[in-house]
Amino acid sequence: MAETLTFQPADDHFAERVWESFNRQGIMHFLGARLVHVAPGECDIELPFKPELTQQHGFFHGGAIGAIADSAAGYAGYTLAPADSGVLTIEYKLNIVAPGDGEKLIARGRVIKPGRSVSVTEARVIAIKNGREKLCAICLQSLAVRQGLPEFLG
Amino acid sequence: MAETLTFQPADDHFAERVWESFNRQGIMHFLGARLVHVAPGECDIELPFKPELTQQHGFFHGGAIGAIADSAAGYAGYTLAPADSGVLTIEYKLNIVAPGDGEKLIARGRVIKPGRSVSVTEARVIAIKNGREKLCAICLQSLAVRQGLPEFLG
Amino acid sequence: MAETLTFQPADDHFAERVWESFNRQGIMHFLGARLVHVAPGECDIELPFKPELTQQHGFFHGGAIGAIADSAAGYAGYTLAPADSGVLTIEYKLNIVAPGDGEKLIARGRVIKPGRSVSVTEARVIAIKNGREKLCAICLQSLAVRQGLPEFLG
Amino acid sequence: MAETLTFQPADDHFAERVWESFNRQGIMHFLGARLVHVAPGECDIELPFKPELTQQHGFFHGGAIGAIADSAAGYAGYTLAPADSGVLTIEYKLNIVAPGDGEKLIARGRVIKPGRSVSVTEARVIAIKNGREKLCAICLQSLAVRQGLPEFLG
Repeated sequence: MAETLTFQPADDHFAERVWESFNRQGIMHFLGARLVHVAPGECDIELPFKPELTQQHGFFHGGAIGAIADSAAGYAGYTLAPADSGVLTIEYKLNIVAPGDGEKLIARGRVIKPGRSVSVTEARVIAIKNGREKLCAICLQSLAVRQGLPEFLG
Repeated sequence: MAETLTFQPADDHFAERVWESFNRQGIMHFLGARLVHVAPGECDIELPFKPELTQQHGFFHGGAIGAIADSAAGYAGYTLAPADSGVLTIEYKLNIVAPGDGEKLIARGRVIKPGRSVSVTEARVIAIKNGREKLCAICLQSLAVRQGLPEFLG
Repeated sequence: MAETLTFQPADDHFAERVWESFNRQGIMHFLGARLVHVAPGECDIELPFKPELTQQHGFFHGGAIGAIADSAAGYAGYTLAPADSGVLTIEYKLNIVAPGDGEKLIARGRVIKPGRSVSVTEARVIAIKNGREKLCAICLQSLAVRQGLPEFLG
Repeated sequence: MAETLTFQPADDHFAERVWESFNRQGIMHFLGARLVHVAPGECDIELPFKPELTQQHGFFHGGAIGAIADSAAGYAGYTLAPADSGVLTIEYKLNIVAPGDGEKLIARGRVIKPGRSVSVTEARVIAIKNGREKLCAICLQSLAVRQGLPEFLG
């Protein structure tokens, strides 16, 4: 559903804050995930293939798909949080629509509706195989926005 | 909500099938997850703490919580699948209700309603700290039951 | 999953508040829903069959199932809200596991985890046919707890 | 997230089938809902305001929002089902992002990923007040596609 949304960040330093927070998440390094795009209301995370991330058929495991979907959606929400606030996952729902088959995954997190206390975000996870993109999963997430919480806590 | 459910497995070898399938999931080894209980309609998975699994505050990351919740619920559903069938995650929803703070997590997957083509399962993820249990997350999952699919594909 | 949870209401008048709020919800009267049980962390709502509530096969429509599930879970959460606070549905997920076939439905809302700003609740919807109970749907819900909001806003 | 998707219906008579099925859903008449748009992978349902559909503040109740979201998403999926097949809601998740405040609601159901046995759809529910549109809710739904089921069963 095409829709053009423009978001105004509440804090000019939103991008630095996302990068710093992402770099402190032990699990993102462990999985091999990389932050590749940060903009107001947007965050993309890439995950290159490695055998440690697979299920039995050699595809990306749902756990890896879910981890980057949750993080990309969460950091998308975090880009719009005020300077003294952070965000926290209340919950997310993940529909897996195709196997995670490819040389990498990319999770594209986008804000659907920013809020003062709750923001709603989504992420679409794309599997890229031989350069072709295929939708692999879609995530719909609720975030709590909290004063005094200085980042996205995945 | 207390409820006593007794499930009859369709295949006597359900437990071996779960163990074999679990052992082929690269990501479960990588995370350090262990299968600790398999019974008709039930599967528990433990995840000991290690720094690689954390978010910024040193707690288990939501991605690790989600990965074992999805797998415990999925294998619970798989225990009731016929011998020539397997199960596949259609979707799951995960509510994170407390930080993953402790020396280990345990995800307790249970079947809510087995079905011929769709089964509904849940998992409760408990954080264990100094031996005390605390609810950390709850997951509600839909599984597709498919003939010719010989396992749970996470 | 059997679990015994005891909740302490923050406001002794929780039951009156639930009854008063329920009675102001136009749609509950319109559907014919009745409040039948209120206790700390618990709320049950019944919906007798009428042809206006059906889908094409003469069963209760998913919309009717969802409406009482959301309300029963929401009022369950509201029983634990402080006197000056109310609750608001952030989101819910509803799995429909069997047709709504019977002379009435009963939605049993229960709190899973009360919180200061977010509470997590569930509802199980049972179809009663010739006096026999059958699970029809399960709902997992997130509620925002808000000061100055004097009820559950469905 | 702008994306252009073109779907090819499997049955040329998809629109008649949607209209006929919708007209047999007792609850849609009861609520006052109207089918206003049917195209391959798309279905819009409108719900004019009436006091019987409200919660305590005079806004549309979440139950009414959920009912048209589930139906619009379900009929969107049904437009792509083969002639001898129908669809059934497995589950949906609904995030309510703003009060249902206006003279009418419109639920815009769209297919995200059609499948042979499971389709994934979404609906965005818009509240229209003095002619201005405001996002009120977003729904992410899983549908079972079944041979021999001649419609969308809400």
